Amino acid sequence: MDKLPKIGRYEFMAEPFHCDFSNHLFMGYLGNHMLNAADFHSNERGYGMNYLNTINKTWVLSRLAIEMEDMPKAYDKFYVETWVDNAMKYFTSRNFKVVSESGHIYGYGKSVWALIDTGSREPSDIFAIREGLINEYIEKDYICPISKSSRVKITDKASLIRFIDTYYSDVDVNGHINSVKYIEHIFDLWDLDWYRQHTIKRLEIAYVAESHQGDRLHFYREQRDSDLDFNVRITKSNELCEETETCRCRVLFV
Amino acid sequence: MDKLPKIGRYEFMAEPFHCDFSNHLFMGYLGNHMLNAADFHSNERGYGMNYLNTINKTWVLSRLAIEMEDMPKAYDKFYVETWVDNAMKYFTSRNFKVVSESGHIYGYGKSVWALIDTGSREPSDIFAIREGLINEYIEKDYICPISKSSRVKITDKASLIRFIDTYYSDVDVNGHINSVKYIEHIFDLWDLDWYRQHTIKRLEIAYVAESHQGDRLHFYREQRDSDLDFNVRITKSNELCEETETCRCRVLFV
Repeated sequence: MDKLPKIGRYEFMAEPFHCDFSNHLFMGYLGNHMLNAADFHSNERGYGMNYLNTINKTWVLSRLAIEMEDMPKAYDKFYVETWVDNAMKYFTSRNFKVVSESGHIYGYGKSVWALIDTGSREPSDIFAIREGLINEYIEKDYICPISKSSRVKITDKASLIRFIDTYYSDVDVNGHINSVKYIEHIFDLWDLDWYRQHTIKRLEIAYVAESHQGDRLHFYREQRDSDLDFNVRITKSNELCEETETCRCRVLFV
Repeated sequence: MDKLPKIGRYEFMAEPFHCDFSNHLFMGYLGNHMLNAADFHSNERGYGMNYLNTINKTWVLSRLAIEMEDMPKAYDKFYVETWVDNAMKYFTSRNFKVVSESGHIYGYGKSVWALIDTGSREPSDIFAIREGLINEYIEKDYICPISKSSRVKITDKASLIRFIDTYYSDVDVNGHINSVKYIEHIFDLWDLDWYRQHTIKRLEIAYVAESHQGDRLHFYREQRDSDLDFNVRITKSNELCEETETCRCRVLFV
């Protein structure tokens, strides 16, 4: 097999049912396409889930930042490019670039992934996978000009906006609440009237702990320095009503 | 332009994030792919939304029945074939067949669509569209062996299982709650343990009235003759707490 290029490029279409009231792709679905691109890219290069599952390892998404100039509209074809720009023992960072057929750049993404053992749930050595295969695909020169996820400091003053229960369709093949569903729920914290006036500029999400079907998710929100800039904390609670943080996010509008 | 065949055939993949805990495509996403196929098929043939929007008309999904032998698994490529098998003045019926690359038949779908005027919301004459263009594409011989949607009779004994509020990500470009979201919510009426023992065989859904962001949806369920066969009624309520029926469904498991 010829060695594949370091950068993968995958075509998607903004399906009409994946678009919001303004006919633009929902951010959750864009996140979904990025995660698909990451999955295709790593599988094709031999260090993806398809191989990892055979040795009881899995990638876990730890952080995701997306920053957009604009969003594809219904029926627009677009490409998600993705590449790994750094690998350490327990974490890799992977970038995304979203471009149109004509070369228009919609925006970028940056993500951090941990490798874990599916039995112990402990971190696992990335360089032990196929003798450090991932090192052959590190691309440091291709530009991803957005800033990394910051460490979001959310205070106790954040107010509870809502809680929701989780069901069958929230759960992925690992038995966890799907990473993309959190993104949907986060953007549901603002209503249609808000989106008539504002556009999502940047999302940062840090996945802190996994949640499961039946967990109740609580959404807390507080404003940052600007009235377009917000922190969001998601906690889960069990039957004993103990709350544990599952996600911490920042959402910036324009 | 050469005339297109009556039957359209569109390729999809069961994306890993569209699969449930058992690694099979969610029924809601299958419905989504069927609606996409219908949209592509009608647009390509000149009587789709792209043209209708220019003359203030739109297709409205009235009924959908899906009956499956099995579901595509993660990464499976499959095709949705679709064709219009009947057209009357105000309604068309459109069929679906879901097949694998090797010809395995996963299942079928049947749908009924109304044409309406987007201003008056009144039914509109289908044969007035481009001088009855749709008549050139009626395919009556290709087999779709599942039964049509029945008229679901749900009694007042159906019990309220849950209510949910609707938000930004539930709303489509028409400002209505997305048809596919109802399907997700319906299947969320059963929990993971149920799906560990049972598989969805057939869904019938009749869309009775549109709902909008902010409406509260109430889900009522009752068992039919068999303990695997259920009726579901969805109502919406507004600030005055008046409930109006929006969907009526039947769900059969095996």
